[in-house]
Amino acid sequence: MPRFLLCDQLEPRRRAGCRYNGRRVTESILSTNSTYSLAEIAQRFDLTCHGDPTIRLDGVGTLAGAGPSQLSFLSNSKYSAQLAATHAGVVVLREEDVANCPVAALVTRDPYVAYAKIAALFERLPAALAGIHPSAVVAAGAQVSSSASIGPCCVIADGAVIADGAVLGPHCIVGEDCTVGAQSRLVARVTLVTRVTLGKRVLVHPGAVIGSDGFGLAFDHSASDHGSWIKLPQLGGVRIGDDCEIGANTTIDRGALDDTVLEQDVRLDNQIQIAHNVHVGAHTAMAGCAAVAGSAKIGRYCMIGGNAGVLGHLELADRVTITAKSLVTHSIREPGEYSSGVPLQENRLWRKSAARFKHLDEYARRLSALEKDRNNE
Amino acid sequence: MPRFLLCDQLEPRRRAGCRYNGRRVTESILSTNSTYSLAEIAQRFDLTCHGDPTIRLDGVGTLAGAGPSQLSFLSNSKYSAQLAATHAGVVVLREEDVANCPVAALVTRDPYVAYAKIAALFERLPAALAGIHPSAVVAAGAQVSSSASIGPCCVIADGAVIADGAVLGPHCIVGEDCTVGAQSRLVARVTLVTRVTLGKRVLVHPGAVIGSDGFGLAFDHSASDHGSWIKLPQLGGVRIGDDCEIGANTTIDRGALDDTVLEQDVRLDNQIQIAHNVHVGAHTAMAGCAAVAGSAKIGRYCMIGGNAGVLGHLELADRVTITAKSLVTHSIREPGEYSSGVPLQENRLWRKSAARFKHLDEYARRLSALEKDRNNE
Amino acid sequence: MPRFLLCDQLEPRRRAGCRYNGRRVTESILSTNSTYSLAEIAQRFDLTCHGDPTIRLDGVGTLAGAGPSQLSFLSNSKYSAQLAATHAGVVVLREEDVANCPVAALVTRDPYVAYAKIAALFERLPAALAGIHPSAVVAAGAQVSSSASIGPCCVIADGAVIADGAVLGPHCIVGEDCTVGAQSRLVARVTLVTRVTLGKRVLVHPGAVIGSDGFGLAFDHSASDHGSWIKLPQLGGVRIGDDCEIGANTTIDRGALDDTVLEQDVRLDNQIQIAHNVHVGAHTAMAGCAAVAGSAKIGRYCMIGGNAGVLGHLELADRVTITAKSLVTHSIREPGEYSSGVPLQENRLWRKSAARFKHLDEYARRLSALEKDRNNE
Repeated sequence: MPRFLLCDQLEPRRRAGCRYNGRRVTESILSTNSTYSLAEIAQRFDLTCHGDPTIRLDGVGTLAGAGPSQLSFLSNSKYSAQLAATHAGVVVLREEDVANCPVAALVTRDPYVAYAKIAALFERLPAALAGIHPSAVVAAGAQVSSSASIGPCCVIADGAVIADGAVLGPHCIVGEDCTVGAQSRLVARVTLVTRVTLGKRVLVHPGAVIGSDGFGLAFDHSASDHGSWIKLPQLGGVRIGDDCEIGANTTIDRGALDDTVLEQDVRLDNQIQIAHNVHVGAHTAMAGCAAVAGSAKIGRYCMIGGNAGVLGHLELADRVTITAKSLVTHSIREPGEYSSGVPLQENRLWRKSAARFKHLDEYARRLSALEKDRNNE
Repeated sequence: MPRFLLCDQLEPRRRAGCRYNGRRVTESILSTNSTYSLAEIAQRFDLTCHGDPTIRLDGVGTLAGAGPSQLSFLSNSKYSAQLAATHAGVVVLREEDVANCPVAALVTRDPYVAYAKIAALFERLPAALAGIHPSAVVAAGAQVSSSASIGPCCVIADGAVIADGAVLGPHCIVGEDCTVGAQSRLVARVTLVTRVTLGKRVLVHPGAVIGSDGFGLAFDHSASDHGSWIKLPQLGGVRIGDDCEIGANTTIDRGALDDTVLEQDVRLDNQIQIAHNVHVGAHTAMAGCAAVAGSAKIGRYCMIGGNAGVLGHLELADRVTITAKSLVTHSIREPGEYSSGVPLQENRLWRKSAARFKHLDEYARRLSALEKDRNNE
Repeated sequence: MPRFLLCDQLEPRRRAGCRYNGRRVTESILSTNSTYSLAEIAQRFDLTCHGDPTIRLDGVGTLAGAGPSQLSFLSNSKYSAQLAATHAGVVVLREEDVANCPVAALVTRDPYVAYAKIAALFERLPAALAGIHPSAVVAAGAQVSSSASIGPCCVIADGAVIADGAVLGPHCIVGEDCTVGAQSRLVARVTLVTRVTLGKRVLVHPGAVIGSDGFGLAFDHSASDHGSWIKLPQLGGVRIGDDCEIGANTTIDRGALDDTVLEQDVRLDNQIQIAHNVHVGAHTAMAGCAAVAGSAKIGRYCMIGGNAGVLGHLELADRVTITAKSLVTHSIREPGEYSSGVPLQENRLWRKSAARFKHLDEYARRLSALEKDRNNE
């Protein structure tokens, strides 16, 4: 018995003919009672099956926590000991681990990827009904596909386009000249400010703000007092490619003249800040609280660690990894892993190291002087 | 004369019988005219009173700013000089400071704690009426206590439970299978995404997002192009204990398989990021912009400084303090204070230190070589 | 043909006489067809004009991207090569660059400032109609100017004041005793919690939370278990001066007893955290993700870099610049530029430097010992 996020029995309001029409938008929704046989899963994902193919599975779990009707996985050999003791119904693993598996197994070269695909079968997304919730405010000049779902209290401006099968959860705002691509999902409370284009299957989490003003200021020395700031109008937009994911409370500013761009399959965690005119290459992922300053250009397949930063106007090559909390202060031309920062110490010891840091230049000079003396002897 | 946040004269809408029913939810609300005698306060909080017990107090203030009808406190001896000059009506202080107090005094061993308790008497929270505002959208399958207050534009999904005396300010979203415990307060614009359970007396500030998808990705090398990301469904939830406080725009992701957990009395400041499957022990406090990566386990009574970070899967013992902006890169087994980072310098000098940092390994080797030479002489 | 953000044809609801009244609030709105002659612009901004004064301009662009009906600028000599090749209709530049300009020119001492002012002519803000959208919830005790615009789903509490010409986009919340000054613009989804006063022409971006509780806690050792936290009521407010700008998802807490203060023309980027009782001097700008801890006092004309931090209770003089990601750990009395942090290296090399950092104190001692030996020879 499916449950719906929104009361479809609410009386229609505002736009006749636009209420929820009772058709479900998302095809992937499963009732909580869905089960699959091991054989079905093996066939669907093209995996080799060991054990009773009629076992029925109704969910997933960790090696330690899964029960006989659940599927688990072994991807990291660190957890091999847990395999021997697992009570899972079936485990996804590599060929070399089959011998140690006390229960049924599905064999693949990449168990983590296979598990990710299988687990999606058991995800129950909030159901979404096609149509517009009566409490939503949709401008006359907005185009909303009849197969899209517009949740309670959404506000959609003139010039906005909501494509087929897109789902806007409660409280989303889609400003002027913004487009939400087909099958995209704004979970709830997402703000697209202006001139934002989302591709297909983009997923945006609550509190994200996309298309707000870039931080562009000119200091006017001639102004009264000793000068003051003048704001530069931010006339560009934001373009987000297919299959991107944008985390909760992440902010992406629109460009000053040209656009801010995320290519396809870019994955941003929560509370990330992308400044105006940044360009992020396809398949790049950034962990929580990373920040990229204006006009920086990040390559493809990069990994930016949590709370790492990239200064403005820099360029990062493809396949660059920046470790957590590092600050990128110069462009990086070669793929590889880069870091800054100093290691954690007990505060008592750290204070000594930190105090010495301020005198490093002096120490280096004194060291050279000693060496020179030594060589002159 | 109490004032109400919400117009209770608005006509009912949507759900007959569910409008504000005129009963106030929060008992602690005081009119601005509330006053207390010194004797009343001394008795209520079990403090020793010096001076005229009939003095009436109508508020609190700093030693420097408080007037004769206000109460102040001296907790830090740094401010002793201000005590002598205070115009406050009464000062909360330690026994040893009574002699230097020119006005009435309340004596206690911990003036700051006593002050906190007394000051709460003078806080005027926005009044909240039991019932559901007519602009709120409440699903038929939600359970809302008749003593709870649901503010304007709130959206409450099927399977949600709002317990007795809970107050949801305007624009809160409570998703499927979320529970708001008794006497909890969501100030405004709070989002509980899915499978979130808040305990009793939990306070959540605006913009907080709890229960959003954890950032779980598997890289599928076999995908077209040179591979792409696959999302791992986030099937766990979030459990938040009694008496926790969650700051503005803070994000707490739900777990991948198990839950993300905050034990009781955890206090999070603004813009904190808690990743999926993190476990935070009771009474731990984190300052603004701290971030904890996935599956980290923080002990009880820890203090995490502003913008500090903890890498994934690490464990911190009880009573660990991390100073501001430090990055925890290994598990910590012993209580104590830990730090990373280098001290602030004038940029001109810092550049020299920073340049030398890159050669530290070389310097250490050269130093050893000199020592060896020395010893061989 | 102007387009409106909000459907003014919606039927009135809730408060008769308060619907949008059809008068536009913002005078600066231009239709997309607005054009200006070179002569008009030169006269309006008092610039010297070279070239055909009848050229008509309909927008702005980069030197590389602008076409014949667009205006560009040359502010940084780094882009001089682009000047020679530009197809812009006119370029704003300095006297010394006129000779190299292949098209019409406007001459000024500060091309970036002049460009900022001119570009504002071509910005098309979402139109705003005076009046209150029927879906907004406005308390009976709120004062809303008849020339203000209150967007969809806004919630305005008792005691709130919305001054002349103020524009509140969709989903703004204005809490008790908050004031929005004349001509201020809350773009969308802004939360003013309580006791917040915005001056004139203040611009606040989506997701910003102003006036939330400061993070004030006292640890009560006498509580059950091994002690627990007690919250200090936050009884102050927030005062924001004229012409300030507050970025998306930025948080500014209200004071514990006194107010948190931003003087005029303070410019805050996205995701900045300003704790309770902070005081920021006029004309100071902070880049994204900066954070200032409680009671810190920042001077005038300061520049705080991205993700930089300032510890609590510190004071920064006027005209102090803090570079990105630096942590200010002591008060700064002299203007100038200050930094902390270490440079980015390849991870393999950085590991060596970082490992040595922990032994800096030992190295310094060994260096001194060698020098002493040397001197004793």
